[in-house]
Amino acid sequence: MKISDLVARSGVPLATVKFYIREGMLAPGHPVGARRSEYDDTHLGRLQLIRALTAVAGVPLSRAKEVLSIIDDGNGDIYEILSRTIQALSPTDAEHPHEHHPHATWAITQLGKDYAASDESMAAYSQLDESLRAAEEAGLPIGAERLRLYGDQIMTIARAEVGGMPADPREAASYAALGTVIAEPVLASLRRLAHQNLAAGLDQG
Amino acid sequence: MKISDLVARSGVPLATVKFYIREGMLAPGHPVGARRSEYDDTHLGRLQLIRALTAVAGVPLSRAKEVLSIIDDGNGDIYEILSRTIQALSPTDAEHPHEHHPHATWAITQLGKDYAASDESMAAYSQLDESLRAAEEAGLPIGAERLRLYGDQIMTIARAEVGGMPADPREAASYAALGTVIAEPVLASLRRLAHQNLAAGLDQG
Repeated sequence: MKISDLVARSGVPLATVKFYIREGMLAPGHPVGARRSEYDDTHLGRLQLIRALTAVAGVPLSRAKEVLSIIDDGNGDIYEILSRTIQALSPTDAEHPHEHHPHATWAITQLGKDYAASDESMAAYSQLDESLRAAEEAGLPIGAERLRLYGDQIMTIARAEVGGMPADPREAASYAALGTVIAEPVLASLRRLAHQNLAAGLDQG
Repeated sequence: MKISDLVARSGVPLATVKFYIREGMLAPGHPVGARRSEYDDTHLGRLQLIRALTAVAGVPLSRAKEVLSIIDDGNGDIYEILSRTIQALSPTDAEHPHEHHPHATWAITQLGKDYAASDESMAAYSQLDESLRAAEEAGLPIGAERLRLYGDQIMTIARAEVGGMPADPREAASYAALGTVIAEPVLASLRRLAHQNLAAGLDQG
């Protein structure tokens, strides 16, 4: 397809498409003449991925580029791809990289063997620590029982998600990136709806 | 306690404490002389709530003020408090308030009676619609089976959370506000850890 068709089908403006090409985030078209390049479905898919990450999920451009380069590497086993993708998408603990994470360490002990492979180098580890500390400081500490309930329900969700992951490493990386950022707001909005539905039930009961 | 003790114990700078008082978010101290006011644990608790909402959860000041006024109203049944709090904390669909939400409507049908009290006036309803549409546009549509799994696990979580809600309406509002914003990052970081743990298991297996 021509670049104008790519623009029309993706909904991404021409200037933005050209910017992504200059930044190395999108491959240039295949030249088919002195003044024309041809684009295909790979370009379209890539544009959708970039838009999903940046416009929909609000991932900063620098992090989106990191994720795209993990996808383009396309080597490493699925574990490494998943780890690197989640790591690239996570807010980093840059200010205090060597800090201890007592809340997360306590939590991982409580959660037992399903979470035993968690380690302090994972960005999600310090995120968990930070959010548990915030809950405690706000006067709503999350106790062991509540935490185990969270851990069990979330593990059931994660098993279904990881089970659906494509075997091809490049597709797996793309799937992991989208799955991480796309499903989070689905789960968050379902939780808010669940609260409101339960409250409506209390109201009637 | 003196205002300097309030500053020391809350960790909130003096200028910020004064700003919250001017903005009506924090009650002034009880005057105990021409130049001194006395503060108590109510002030400290309120400061912790404001900090949890704004600094920890990143809620914009205007929305935090709305939540505080719901708490201060302290009337209405628990259903209304919960609904109003979640509504105030949710990004609103201000640009397209009357738009249809086909994805969310489909989802609510799939989710059955547990979610049947959901209606289009709820901010979480349009959030769900938006996030499902984003998943589809990103080429990772969330099907009925996955959605029902999400709905079931999240409802189990929500039941435990609503079950622990205080009976006093003002405390319930504060609990709902914190519960909504504080537990979301805990759940999100657990999900990322769960994915990494599962991938580590695949790696060994």
